[in-house]
Amino acid sequence: MTSHVRTDPPIEDQGLAWIEEDGRDGEIVVSSRVRLARNVQGYSFSSHATADEREALFDKAGSAAAASGVLEDVDVWEVSRLNRRDRTLLLERRLVSKELIDGPGGGPRRGAGLALARTRAFGLMVNEEDHLRLQALRGGFQLAAAWRDVDQLDEEIGARLPYAFHHEFGFLTSCPTNVGTGLRASVFIHLPGLVLTRQIRKVLEGMGQLGVTYRGLYGEGSKIVGNFFQISNQTTLGKTEEDLIDQLEVLVGRVIGYEKQARSVLLREAPNVLEDKVWRAYGLLRHARSLPFEEMMNLLSGVRLGVSLKLLDSPRVDVISRIMIRAQTAHLARSAGRRLDETDADAFRAGYVRRVLTSDDAT
Amino acid sequence: MTSHVRTDPPIEDQGLAWIEEDGRDGEIVVSSRVRLARNVQGYSFSSHATADEREALFDKAGSAAAASGVLEDVDVWEVSRLNRRDRTLLLERRLVSKELIDGPGGGPRRGAGLALARTRAFGLMVNEEDHLRLQALRGGFQLAAAWRDVDQLDEEIGARLPYAFHHEFGFLTSCPTNVGTGLRASVFIHLPGLVLTRQIRKVLEGMGQLGVTYRGLYGEGSKIVGNFFQISNQTTLGKTEEDLIDQLEVLVGRVIGYEKQARSVLLREAPNVLEDKVWRAYGLLRHARSLPFEEMMNLLSGVRLGVSLKLLDSPRVDVISRIMIRAQTAHLARSAGRRLDETDADAFRAGYVRRVLTSDDAT
Repeated sequence: MTSHVRTDPPIEDQGLAWIEEDGRDGEIVVSSRVRLARNVQGYSFSSHATADEREALFDKAGSAAAASGVLEDVDVWEVSRLNRRDRTLLLERRLVSKELIDGPGGGPRRGAGLALARTRAFGLMVNEEDHLRLQALRGGFQLAAAWRDVDQLDEEIGARLPYAFHHEFGFLTSCPTNVGTGLRASVFIHLPGLVLTRQIRKVLEGMGQLGVTYRGLYGEGSKIVGNFFQISNQTTLGKTEEDLIDQLEVLVGRVIGYEKQARSVLLREAPNVLEDKVWRAYGLLRHARSLPFEEMMNLLSGVRLGVSLKLLDSPRVDVISRIMIRAQTAHLARSAGRRLDETDADAFRAGYVRRVLTSDDAT
Repeated sequence: MTSHVRTDPPIEDQGLAWIEEDGRDGEIVVSSRVRLARNVQGYSFSSHATADEREALFDKAGSAAAASGVLEDVDVWEVSRLNRRDRTLLLERRLVSKELIDGPGGGPRRGAGLALARTRAFGLMVNEEDHLRLQALRGGFQLAAAWRDVDQLDEEIGARLPYAFHHEFGFLTSCPTNVGTGLRASVFIHLPGLVLTRQIRKVLEGMGQLGVTYRGLYGEGSKIVGNFFQISNQTTLGKTEEDLIDQLEVLVGRVIGYEKQARSVLLREAPNVLEDKVWRAYGLLRHARSLPFEEMMNLLSGVRLGVSLKLLDSPRVDVISRIMIRAQTAHLARSAGRRLDETDADAFRAGYVRRVLTSDDAT
């Protein structure tokens, strides 16, 4: 199998294909992600490795990714060679972690990189907390499919780079919370119904007791905006990967059920309040001349709920997902062709959202 | 001169013609009004009169109005014969006072009435606090024209109904604050610039020291909404009518100057904030599904400012004035053909505003 590799290619639309995927329960689950932490035998853990060791590993990992059949054509970036805006573009697409692009502080470490299938949100980070973080991102509720992707990639990469493995603990990882399977699966899920009916806290607490945790848009420690939650497994040890995925699927399925119930309650008990709320959100997005990101997310949350409940005809949920990615500051700065301070970014954001909604008219 | 009189006619669009008038400084002054308080010799003041005396006076006043050349065709209503919604329609058009339709409490007194030129906001209330309150309402800044109207009507009515007059005090009125000329002139003025630049209090205090007072939308004691103020003379004694009008005109002219200055400052110092504010107001008006009256007035204030400053292309200010009248609850109830509770009224209001703005698209 021949695949084509580009090294440090320009950042175009890589890693956004999940948006178009029509996954299950797409009106509630934005996307599903699985990642596996792997370390390679014979190399020091990233935190202890020298720059030369990291670069050597980066080259190995890039070659392994290039040889992968499942990734097909691959783009490879050494993150330290990207400018700040391009690094942030990758972060805004959730293709790299903040840790990868920030390094121990100030900027990415030499050898920190990303290999990415050219037409999918599927690939691996190199020299993050662990040597390798294999990851697949899918649209809608598709944990099993994302797991199959990553599992295949894991076999292909593992065949070329022998992993550090302990017969008792499983795959060894830099941080003990990842040891074992090294698997983290998560869904990015929109729960406005549970928030509006004030059941969200109870639901999140219940999940916590079942080994499942939640985060905000940009992962660990980030803020919840727009009623979007990242829900993921906390345990990685003592179970098979399939069991972990199954367990999270069941749990998320239950959360989806609660959310659907909450939405019906809202529709039944306060249809007019709900309709007014979603149309006001639409009206502000459609006409504002300045939109801070967080406010935009809150308004998009209202519009997404409205579209899901057929109170609004458009925009489609994939259009909303695209806005959530492309109305982030680095994406706006790329379109503008210059750096944007906060005020500029808010104005460009409003202009972008307005153009998208106007070309996709709901009225 | 023959004029046609209708007694207790259906309420259609009477008294709204001022909206179409293109008065001076119409982007700031919504309307100008002059009224004269008059009492008729040989009748007890309204507060002391019997129902029969009031009805006799009502008949006399109706005949005098019918004979007036300046009013041309006249509609005459005895307010106590109107249902509550129709009385409120007249109030919402500011053709009658709350005192006239409420009487001493519970409802209008027998003999309380209104004579109105069929094609203008011009006529007289009968058996309000005084026997007669001659009034003319004009669009924009047209105090002098409104005064000429009322002055002519005063001559015509006075020729048939001899007024109570004291050689020293002037025209006698029920309340001593009206004695003398019996004149009250006012403008309904939109001052968002002075409010946003926090100069409004200073300006209003300055006016107060010059014998000029301000009120809200529905007159004495009513709340300021949407940055709309009724500014009127407080003194009625010791000056000629022309002097009082001139003085108020000069003063309002100065307020208009301050408001224009404030608007330029806003445009110069914070054009983006201003543009965002007016477009957000437009977006909410255009899309909300429930609009409380006071919120609507505040949003219309933003839109009116935006249109005046050419930040928005539409709606025209006359369309905004029409909304301010027709989106009041009794007007909405008439369109709906039924009583509306507050929730219903808010929904109908939103629907009405949406239709007007959609047919008059600004985007």
